[in-house]
Amino acid sequence: MALNCTQKLIKSHLVTGDMIPGTEISLKIDQTLSQDATGTMVMLELEAMGLDIAKTEASAQYVDHNLIQSDSKNADDHLFLQSAAQRFGLHFSRPGNGVSHPVHMQRLAKPGKTLLGSDSHTCANGCMGMLAMGAGGLDVALAIAGEPFYLRMPKVWGVKLTGELQEWVSAKDVILELLRRHDVKGGVGRVIEYYGPGIATLSAMDRHVIANMGAELGATGTVFPSDEEIKRFLKSQDREDDWVELVADEGATYDLYEEINLSEVVPLVAKPSSPGNVVPVTEIEGTPIYQSYIGSSANPGYNDFAVAAEIVKGKEIAEGVSFDINPTSRQMLTDLLQEGHIASFIQAGGRLHQAGCNGCIGMGQAPATDRNSLRTTPRNFPGRSGTVEDRVYLCGPETAAASVLAGVITDPRTLGPKAPKVKAIKNPSLDLNLLDMPLPVEEARKVIIHKGPNIASIPEMDEMPDNLQVPILLKMGDNISTDGILAGGSRVLPFRSNLPEISKFAFEMIDSTYYERGKKSVSHGGHAIVAGFNYGQGSSREHAALAPRYLGLRVALVKDFARIHWQNLVNFGILPITFVDESDYNKLKQGDILAFSNLRSKIQAGNEFDIKIEGTNETIKVKHTLTKRQVDIMLKGGMINWVKSQQKSTS
Amino acid sequence: MALNCTQKLIKSHLVTGDMIPGTEISLKIDQTLSQDATGTMVMLELEAMGLDIAKTEASAQYVDHNLIQSDSKNADDHLFLQSAAQRFGLHFSRPGNGVSHPVHMQRLAKPGKTLLGSDSHTCANGCMGMLAMGAGGLDVALAIAGEPFYLRMPKVWGVKLTGELQEWVSAKDVILELLRRHDVKGGVGRVIEYYGPGIATLSAMDRHVIANMGAELGATGTVFPSDEEIKRFLKSQDREDDWVELVADEGATYDLYEEINLSEVVPLVAKPSSPGNVVPVTEIEGTPIYQSYIGSSANPGYNDFAVAAEIVKGKEIAEGVSFDINPTSRQMLTDLLQEGHIASFIQAGGRLHQAGCNGCIGMGQAPATDRNSLRTTPRNFPGRSGTVEDRVYLCGPETAAASVLAGVITDPRTLGPKAPKVKAIKNPSLDLNLLDMPLPVEEARKVIIHKGPNIASIPEMDEMPDNLQVPILLKMGDNISTDGILAGGSRVLPFRSNLPEISKFAFEMIDSTYYERGKKSVSHGGHAIVAGFNYGQGSSREHAALAPRYLGLRVALVKDFARIHWQNLVNFGILPITFVDESDYNKLKQGDILAFSNLRSKIQAGNEFDIKIEGTNETIKVKHTLTKRQVDIMLKGGMINWVKSQQKSTS
Repeated sequence: MALNCTQKLIKSHLVTGDMIPGTEISLKIDQTLSQDATGTMVMLELEAMGLDIAKTEASAQYVDHNLIQSDSKNADDHLFLQSAAQRFGLHFSRPGNGVSHPVHMQRLAKPGKTLLGSDSHTCANGCMGMLAMGAGGLDVALAIAGEPFYLRMPKVWGVKLTGELQEWVSAKDVILELLRRHDVKGGVGRVIEYYGPGIATLSAMDRHVIANMGAELGATGTVFPSDEEIKRFLKSQDREDDWVELVADEGATYDLYEEINLSEVVPLVAKPSSPGNVVPVTEIEGTPIYQSYIGSSANPGYNDFAVAAEIVKGKEIAEGVSFDINPTSRQMLTDLLQEGHIASFIQAGGRLHQAGCNGCIGMGQAPATDRNSLRTTPRNFPGRSGTVEDRVYLCGPETAAASVLAGVITDPRTLGPKAPKVKAIKNPSLDLNLLDMPLPVEEARKVIIHKGPNIASIPEMDEMPDNLQVPILLKMGDNISTDGILAGGSRVLPFRSNLPEISKFAFEMIDSTYYERGKKSVSHGGHAIVAGFNYGQGSSREHAALAPRYLGLRVALVKDFARIHWQNLVNFGILPITFVDESDYNKLKQGDILAFSNLRSKIQAGNEFDIKIEGTNETIKVKHTLTKRQVDIMLKGGMINWVKSQQKSTS
Repeated sequence: MALNCTQKLIKSHLVTGDMIPGTEISLKIDQTLSQDATGTMVMLELEAMGLDIAKTEASAQYVDHNLIQSDSKNADDHLFLQSAAQRFGLHFSRPGNGVSHPVHMQRLAKPGKTLLGSDSHTCANGCMGMLAMGAGGLDVALAIAGEPFYLRMPKVWGVKLTGELQEWVSAKDVILELLRRHDVKGGVGRVIEYYGPGIATLSAMDRHVIANMGAELGATGTVFPSDEEIKRFLKSQDREDDWVELVADEGATYDLYEEINLSEVVPLVAKPSSPGNVVPVTEIEGTPIYQSYIGSSANPGYNDFAVAAEIVKGKEIAEGVSFDINPTSRQMLTDLLQEGHIASFIQAGGRLHQAGCNGCIGMGQAPATDRNSLRTTPRNFPGRSGTVEDRVYLCGPETAAASVLAGVITDPRTLGPKAPKVKAIKNPSLDLNLLDMPLPVEEARKVIIHKGPNIASIPEMDEMPDNLQVPILLKMGDNISTDGILAGGSRVLPFRSNLPEISKFAFEMIDSTYYERGKKSVSHGGHAIVAGFNYGQGSSREHAALAPRYLGLRVALVKDFARIHWQNLVNFGILPITFVDESDYNKLKQGDILAFSNLRSKIQAGNEFDIKIEGTNETIKVKHTLTKRQVDIMLKGGMINWVKSQQKSTS
């Protein structure tokens, strides 16, 4: 049977399941990446699992998110991550070396491999002929520990590229065009695979731009073939040996089809406050801007910066506009310096920032109130810039540069018939220090993980007991979100590496007495919570399961669960059960004590069982939807314990 | 009579008083500078005074402190400052253009002039043959409004420089040597004037380095002569016409004498946590470092960066050390880029940050817990880096660069007999956009000052009433500091431009009910506070007077006052009085109502008067120490009202 690239990647990594869209499969993971915002928890999970040395072919820990060191917390995290990376045999990228995705592409990405990353833009490396996917922190920790990654088999969405991009139009406009057509949910459950003659006209970095924002369509991944251009790119990084060809078989088919004629793509802008809110630049020309922002994983390439530099070279930016330049890797910065592009930015009035994610994730460069910010970044969700009710527009570097000169949103095509040609770099740099190499195993084993005062190991968690008498500490209604369970934001997130501290915020907005009551419950066998429909909707943050578990939560009894939070509850050994008869919800009140007897054998035996309300004659019928593997995880007290036991049984 | 440079500067600007050390004089101010941390209040004060156009020869508003835009507040402040600078006829320096002191030196500093700045390192421009002094925000606002600056006539401390600096030793070591000898209070009440043959061996920027850290000795100012080197410097800035000679008369004398033989100065380091804690580098060689930090107003020159770049060029920094590069002006960054020095830093492993004060004032780059940070900055007060219990060492760029290669504090002389020679810049850049020019007066008058949601005008304040019945809202003990009155820190300072908001923190740590009680008192004639000795010690922040005044404070009755806070109380129309008989303190309790009758005539008539405790037969004798001018200020309700009335009477 003729296979497309995505099918080839999946077939060659399939551990369990069949390649039937929508059914569960599991895949062997060759490489992982983690960044510092999610990575501290990944490292603590590896520690809690008792991992010896990473079992992947290559795993890298990057520091690119939390670069603003206003106090010691971020600096402490950087040292922690460096020592943990050394201990577990990971590559490490220092603060200032750049954004994970382009650095990973330069140093580690390999055609034909799978990559799992605790960052939603991990799909960017799909440009290299990889199956690259974003996932939660624990998923990445499990992959590092050698476990397969479970997902639903995606549909493969073939997007045929024909024609060639016109002057002043670039790769960013291609992915904005796809977002214009299909909006932010258009890729859900799909891998976007590009094919057709247009691909040959796009550089590896152009493909990175397009692959990266597959995340904005909600896609599982983006796949480009690995062709001569990828070979050329790898050669430029002194890694020609890492190249293998990956192309679709002749006659390969796709589950869905799309075509983009590159010749017809025009400069596009995503208006506030969704990446799917796309219109041609011409439609909003003349809109005044406070800021033009260049950088991020969505336009990370040498050319993305160089073309903007050529546009502003020898000119002056408009008065009162902030022109923020955010290089994406040290190696690219070296090339930009060498070719005089950084000097062009500075002389035109630019503000040069260190290499990293920076303002793209709200770490600095927030715009002023009620002012428009034009950015080459991937996302403009409300408030992401750091400014409440912000007005962020997304575009390509040509539009950003043309607009900063005019002070208003400007179609770059008004600057003349021909866009500046970016010259090839005379002596391209090759910075092998972008990634520290993993230590030799014997040395790694000797590394003591360095923990600052705000970094706390994940406490050991006990097995599921056979008998439980647990009080209902909270009875909640429908649609409780993970933000309600554990808020995000600058008040809470600094404690991302400190479970005892972050747990103080658990359910704070719902009932501020929960923390104290929960903490007391720990020594008395823990507690339960009860809720209505759609419990745990919203953000995937795993702390929303981990923190209540730390405070003694053993059982979540609800009408139904949001998918990701349900998975997180399983991962951290909290029994997720639903009412067989939803009206039983009304029989329960806060303070009631639920009694579970012979629980271990009951959840192994079947999906339904009875629980008793203590002090009454009432019993309630409940059910779980755990697979056999998940029952085992639950009995062991969660995924960390389960992996620990696996490590032991194989060592 | 033969005069030294300082005496010439003072004599030519004397408005009132005699040049007798220790007595009050007032001086005409030619130039001012303000930065963004203090400048927002300066601009609000100008607005409250109803200023039309600045009366100084040149005033500049810089944005260099609050460059981290984590939310809209700082960006809003930048726009506010820009519009206010335009409205009042000031120069404006945009965020990213650089640190006020070197930019002021490049674009505005003139020999023979006086400069007052709302930044303690304003003395740096003493390198240009100016009398340059730091002061509070309101002092600078008054100077912009054409009022003289009042101070005590300083002693002039003649420091004779002989010999010539040896290889690997630079200007920073000279000022560290003076700090080694005299510690952080050695310059109090003095202007440090350098003279002697050694001066000719120091560039204008070297002198800036030395002048800048006069602030660390507590000096009123630092003065260098204006000689051929200053002429050369001004010529390099296309401002040769601004040069005048300023040298001491033959036979001029000094109040105090000192000599430094430059040939004998060695590389020095100030250990944690005081700039006066100075030892030779040799004494602490081998101390491991987490960070090497280059930049700030203490080492702002092209050469300060270039020599460090030459030292690290083609090498690699030690593993695990953060090498933070903080350029000090856009113009200097352009030169460093052109000559390849920035590339040297990046290739060696440096993290390049935007031009500004940055980590020197705790805005980023905070070191990790319990790790040593080596910096070319001027101050290492505890916690200033942003890290609690930090360990910051101060040194020159040669030591910082040598140490970052080794990963431990290293005497640069161990690198060889000759330090790298920094080549002259081929085409020195001249960035006239570093400072926006003031608008023409007619245009300026049309500017609407832009205020974001966190910027509130200073409310109008009423005159001192003739009769007051005011309750004592707080009775406090001795040594109440301005931190106790109004805390600093990241919780409070974001509201520096918003009096209604910041006043919520007034006396919060002493009595959290004060804010509510104070606010209620406003409509009932206000209130008083009572305290013991040394009331208002510590930081000079004027919000500690302004916020209580906003909440109705009319009278502060204490045993005695700390000097600066007393001045601030006068400035904001709060009557500062002390007990004639200190034991009367015991007669008063919180809640007592103090009655002042015929107050206006009483404080004009003499220094002592009686007040009554309502509902008792008790009277208490109190006194004030206001001058005639200050009585007038007090009657008008504070300095802002007083200046407003002066403006009216002269227009």
